[in-house]
Amino acid sequence: MERAVDGTGPPVAVAPAIPVRTVTVREVGPRDGLQSEAPLPVEARARLVTMLSRSGVSKIEAVSFVSPRAVPAMAGAAEVWARVERSPEVRYSALVPNRRGAASALEAGGFASLQAFLAASDGYNSRNVGKSVSESIEDVTGVLAEASRAGVPVECSISAAFGDPYEGDVPPDRVADVAERLADAGIAGISLGDTTGMATPTRIWAVVDSVRTRLPRVPLNLHLHDTRGTAMANALAALEIGVDEFDTSVGGLGGSPFAPGANGNLPTEDLVHMLQDMGIETGVSLDRVLEATVEVQAMVGHPLPSQVSKAGPRWTVGG
Amino acid sequence: MERAVDGTGPPVAVAPAIPVRTVTVREVGPRDGLQSEAPLPVEARARLVTMLSRSGVSKIEAVSFVSPRAVPAMAGAAEVWARVERSPEVRYSALVPNRRGAASALEAGGFASLQAFLAASDGYNSRNVGKSVSESIEDVTGVLAEASRAGVPVECSISAAFGDPYEGDVPPDRVADVAERLADAGIAGISLGDTTGMATPTRIWAVVDSVRTRLPRVPLNLHLHDTRGTAMANALAALEIGVDEFDTSVGGLGGSPFAPGANGNLPTEDLVHMLQDMGIETGVSLDRVLEATVEVQAMVGHPLPSQVSKAGPRWTVGG
Repeated sequence: MERAVDGTGPPVAVAPAIPVRTVTVREVGPRDGLQSEAPLPVEARARLVTMLSRSGVSKIEAVSFVSPRAVPAMAGAAEVWARVERSPEVRYSALVPNRRGAASALEAGGFASLQAFLAASDGYNSRNVGKSVSESIEDVTGVLAEASRAGVPVECSISAAFGDPYEGDVPPDRVADVAERLADAGIAGISLGDTTGMATPTRIWAVVDSVRTRLPRVPLNLHLHDTRGTAMANALAALEIGVDEFDTSVGGLGGSPFAPGANGNLPTEDLVHMLQDMGIETGVSLDRVLEATVEVQAMVGHPLPSQVSKAGPRWTVGG
Repeated sequence: MERAVDGTGPPVAVAPAIPVRTVTVREVGPRDGLQSEAPLPVEARARLVTMLSRSGVSKIEAVSFVSPRAVPAMAGAAEVWARVERSPEVRYSALVPNRRGAASALEAGGFASLQAFLAASDGYNSRNVGKSVSESIEDVTGVLAEASRAGVPVECSISAAFGDPYEGDVPPDRVADVAERLADAGIAGISLGDTTGMATPTRIWAVVDSVRTRLPRVPLNLHLHDTRGTAMANALAALEIGVDEFDTSVGGLGGSPFAPGANGNLPTEDLVHMLQDMGIETGVSLDRVLEATVEVQAMVGHPLPSQVSKAGPRWTVGG
């Protein structure tokens, strides 16, 4: 193919038409963000969820019913959840590792959905939860059984869907295989996780295409990490092929467990700010998210990686 | 337009075909990066350019012949340049503000091109150089006159092409107007600068399209800043419409002058790393750039914002 703008090449491609007008933001700061921080008091965690509940985000992953021994920062999920001032406009979820976690979440009540999880590859899954992918699918099946009795839908996160730090690249077909098994089991939605920041735009296109070809009707969410600086480019790549739901984290809370000092979760304000300028609706108040970032930075005691929280939105500069 | 993946919408768009196979990386760390740092010794600045000369980048903006009173960190350009161990495979440029600067650069000799600059809007231009855009075009004309006698081409950077912190949004047509005046004056290439990080993908598409419609044969370069987290997404957007040359800075050296703590220049290693995974050639050795980042962090005495320098390339994790 010719170089495009060197004065000798042919006229080049026109800009892609983005087939998405509205994006659902699923705020995961209180869960995926805080789980890698030193444990915060229950009151502070509830206050964060309450603040985010007023920010206009459509969904919040509020708490995690994992073992407090395995993840001390997530201990006391029911206590946190009981203190949250909930908004009727927000769909809350709880992360649950298995049937027992699901039972605890359902007992606490009030969740629009439960979020199960597993990895696409045995390498990551065994290190993360000490099980093979097939064993984890049994856990998800247990969650589904428990939740279906309560009439609560279950969505599932597939971690390390774009690369596994232990196994390397994960073939898109393997991700689609796992997604298909989950869909067959009755999952209501799938989140593809770039848990360790190994995705790039072409991998986003390949994996999403592979999953969607098999499961054209299962709602997809993308969970992006900025570990190698690609999260926003990956979000753009996903929007271009019609992905319309993203996990984000207030301030970018939640560093990478594999890279000290590296960015972790895609910051809520950075994505919302870019989408807003592109005319893509999220319903999110940037001001409210930025207020929550100030608050959560004080809670955790260190700055967070989001850029818009430092520079301010583009329309306020110089003003 | 329908939502895409909610189970009710139509099949969605396929991934854009990127019409670029090879990207030219123009390293600007020694100039745009260092100019916002405390002044470094001549020897250190020359060593940085020498290291980068062995990294495989196609172009390096090595020095700046601006007033040492205006930009103390750029003083001693001729001395730095004389100490650089140049590579025959690198095209070096010097930034020059006017005819006098051009004369100094030409006297020093050995530059493949000179880089002039101005802003697209009077607001930014008057604060940056104390002149109107029209007055700056006269400066560029002076540079062209001086350089043409020596047979050296002149390229020109248009700063604040995607938004001006003083004037707000800059209409794409105004950028194209300035570009056209520069092209009429004999400029050999244009760099569109997102100097304060106000670009988003739709603005990239609009401004590049506007300039290219008027000037289909003038080579284009993009100079992106990550002030609001959009630099990598903007790079992807630009690639999709055929832009094949980018300014980048080793380690992301060069913070935003308007936002303490915010990112500045697009980091060389982060762009190269993403492109490499996408099958787009740059000729750059990531290892060599990462070595230079280690060196320059020691020189400036603080960490730099690039992500790949912290997390490592995607193919080394877990290794």
